[in-house]
Amino acid sequence: MQGLWYKQVEQGRRFILKISPGESLRQRLVEFAKEVRLDHAVVVSAVGSVQDLTFRGIKAGAKLPVTPPRMHVHELAGPLELLALTGNLLPDERGEIDCHLHVIASRSSGDVLGGHLFDAKVFATCEVVLSEIHAEGVERHLSRTGGIPTVFITDDEPAP
Amino acid sequence: MQGLWYKQVEQGRRFILKISPGESLRQRLVEFAKEVRLDHAVVVSAVGSVQDLTFRGIKAGAKLPVTPPRMHVHELAGPLELLALTGNLLPDERGEIDCHLHVIASRSSGDVLGGHLFDAKVFATCEVVLSEIHAEGVERHLSRTGGIPTVFITDDEPAP
Amino acid sequence: MQGLWYKQVEQGRRFILKISPGESLRQRLVEFAKEVRLDHAVVVSAVGSVQDLTFRGIKAGAKLPVTPPRMHVHELAGPLELLALTGNLLPDERGEIDCHLHVIASRSSGDVLGGHLFDAKVFATCEVVLSEIHAEGVERHLSRTGGIPTVFITDDEPAP
Repeated sequence: MQGLWYKQVEQGRRFILKISPGESLRQRLVEFAKEVRLDHAVVVSAVGSVQDLTFRGIKAGAKLPVTPPRMHVHELAGPLELLALTGNLLPDERGEIDCHLHVIASRSSGDVLGGHLFDAKVFATCEVVLSEIHAEGVERHLSRTGGIPTVFITDDEPAP
Repeated sequence: MQGLWYKQVEQGRRFILKISPGESLRQRLVEFAKEVRLDHAVVVSAVGSVQDLTFRGIKAGAKLPVTPPRMHVHELAGPLELLALTGNLLPDERGEIDCHLHVIASRSSGDVLGGHLFDAKVFATCEVVLSEIHAEGVERHLSRTGGIPTVFITDDEPAP
Repeated sequence: MQGLWYKQVEQGRRFILKISPGESLRQRLVEFAKEVRLDHAVVVSAVGSVQDLTFRGIKAGAKLPVTPPRMHVHELAGPLELLALTGNLLPDERGEIDCHLHVIASRSSGDVLGGHLFDAKVFATCEVVLSEIHAEGVERHLSRTGGIPTVFITDDEPAP
């Protein structure tokens, strides 16, 4: 289909996770995925609070590909309420699990901030629901045009 | 149940989609739904980046019904990180697929903005997970009280 | 697993709900859960608009446990677009259903605000998709360290 690639996937296992205060959100999710042999998964829900949050945004007016001078990196000590975490876990080019996560968090003023998540430490708690998808051939590869790693549906799609 | 309508729905197919740079998010989703004959679906996850984003918000102090003078429309060239897309695809009164989507996006400052999505073009990539629901009789109709189209559970609910 | 508790859960029923204007989001969700005997569930999707929104944020620099002086409570008359509602419904220590919900909403300026939801009234409409999970032994208990109620996986985890 022009401008859109897709794959019908079978739903697999579903997990509820609680990550403890002080732990790295990204490391714990990746280690969990390795432990239970979760190759492809989507974040259905995440709530809690975070500190030491680092994420990036794309500068207004930026062109493709997305390169470091076209991004802005933020580091916030927090703590902040974690309002949502969206994204997926997929194997990269070497078959290793890779998360692509965007974060939405709020200050005590009620203002919301977020972007492409690098990492965060859990503050009081973090409750996550993950849904496994059986998606053989779906991987994350670097997109030359986009400058960023993204989903490739290797069955159907020309190599990036 | 007073003040609440509901229907138990069966879960159907699940899809992972990647929409290419420059494509309209709304058009591609609707065309995809037509191609795979997806009548009822919910957005489980969406991450990526967007440009040429248009959405609306409701003015503070507005009364029902929601009419154009009570809304504020925003157009942003971007690009912006796409933090989330929430909502559903349901048939409208004529049986044609209709999306109700709310968008959450971030500037390079980390500030987050969003509202009721009119449309957006994909910037670097857009990864979406959709879950089909078998929900015979659930449609989107114009609500006379609300001024906006909303879910109607046509089996149980009086006509809007 | 160090720093992370998890449980594989079976997926149960799925529901689509519409809550009417003027109704309390929290009360209607809890009453709905009681009516259909939904013990464990996750919010998959929520869109609509809200008024009389109350939520809290955590103050920057706050330490654990999260106590009232370390929070900031917000009350907004609105209306606001409801961009997302994330979280879950689980039984508390007494076996009664309890929601842990975070809210993301937008002003007509496009600015987004949110935090830990206390309550909100539906403005024009509210469309919610809930997914039941069969998660025997997963409950919400007060965490002494965190100061807040959070998920406890009572099969495996030491009492809080």
